[in-house]
Amino acid sequence: MKVLTTMRAVPPMAVGHVRDLRVRWALEEAGMPYDLRLIGPEDQVSPEYRRRQPFGRVPVLQDGDLSLFESGAILLHLGAQSPALLPLDEKGRAEATMWMFAALNTVEPPVVNLVEAVFFCGQEAWAIERRPAIEAAVVDVLKAIDAWLADREYLTGRFTVADILMTTILRMLGRTGLMAPFPALSAWHARCKERPAFKKALADQVAVYKREEAVA
Amino acid sequence: MKVLTTMRAVPPMAVGHVRDLRVRWALEEAGMPYDLRLIGPEDQVSPEYRRRQPFGRVPVLQDGDLSLFESGAILLHLGAQSPALLPLDEKGRAEATMWMFAALNTVEPPVVNLVEAVFFCGQEAWAIERRPAIEAAVVDVLKAIDAWLADREYLTGRFTVADILMTTILRMLGRTGLMAPFPALSAWHARCKERPAFKKALADQVAVYKREEAVA
Repeated sequence: MKVLTTMRAVPPMAVGHVRDLRVRWALEEAGMPYDLRLIGPEDQVSPEYRRRQPFGRVPVLQDGDLSLFESGAILLHLGAQSPALLPLDEKGRAEATMWMFAALNTVEPPVVNLVEAVFFCGQEAWAIERRPAIEAAVVDVLKAIDAWLADREYLTGRFTVADILMTTILRMLGRTGLMAPFPALSAWHARCKERPAFKKALADQVAVYKREEAVA
Repeated sequence: MKVLTTMRAVPPMAVGHVRDLRVRWALEEAGMPYDLRLIGPEDQVSPEYRRRQPFGRVPVLQDGDLSLFESGAILLHLGAQSPALLPLDEKGRAEATMWMFAALNTVEPPVVNLVEAVFFCGQEAWAIERRPAIEAAVVDVLKAIDAWLADREYLTGRFTVADILMTTILRMLGRTGLMAPFPALSAWHARCKERPAFKKALADQVAVYKREEAVA
């Protein structure tokens, strides 16, 4: 049985956005059952955990002999096990891989910077001064994805783990409203979030923190 | 013949740091010949180029029928063609893939933020206020990689495309001196930069911009 490691508790703002969501969603799409292992801050700094995740972060997926970190690497690994996650032909697989890296290296960095400037440090002077430049960087990538999606149902023509990564990353924009001016992007985002596997994964993540809250 | 697309001209500060360096280095390690295609700002916004690189950036690698963007996806693709870039066994390949994603998603974002705050906007109020927090985020990942490398010659025990990505990303720290307190990290970085394939790739990139300068 696959074992997914994630945080036992997170700040309220992070509930529904912990990165195990990406892995849960992929596992649901592929119909792969999994167990959960919950860790705390004491584990994140332990030498034993650092051997599995050198940066002390989550998620980690144990799959047989393999212990995997980085959500992108985990999704690529799962993709190789299920045609529901990645196509079997070389071209389709290469396209999905490009969009996985685009999500993680071109899109997520400016989105994370915006989350930091708006939601975490919104009242700080640096954030107020810097926000227009950060927003412009985000809008720049949103515009490019919107143009790309004008004649596509999913990023690579069919649903893949690239859509999982990009959807969860863009969800972080939350109530900034930055996606609203982009119709193809907004329709694709809604389409992805309508998938039963996404809804199940999200509900399962939220349930962990509600349960832990009740216990504490 | 493989064709690598990159910028015809870049600001002086970017010479030696354009992302085609990663691809050139991998191609040199694997002994794969390639042609160069140089583009300008007019190409970056053209619909034709955006079909190949939706964000209008470089590098792009044409390899037979496949047109690839995102340096991570290109290196993963080349890795599948050469055991000099990625090991053949599943475990070794999974480890290298994890470190590729770690380089691009865990390490590069704070490094790019620091480059922005120090080298591009060093005199702006937001950068002066924010620099300590950005530096702390960079030091946090450097410390983790240093601990990981304490008993390893390369990130995964042998040289792979993950070392190529991480080396080029950490080179951006330049004269900030942030790597100096970390002996294992510094020794590994020097070891990677000593490789003949790196030196050849760097010299070839620099030569393009010297030549273009001479022509202009």
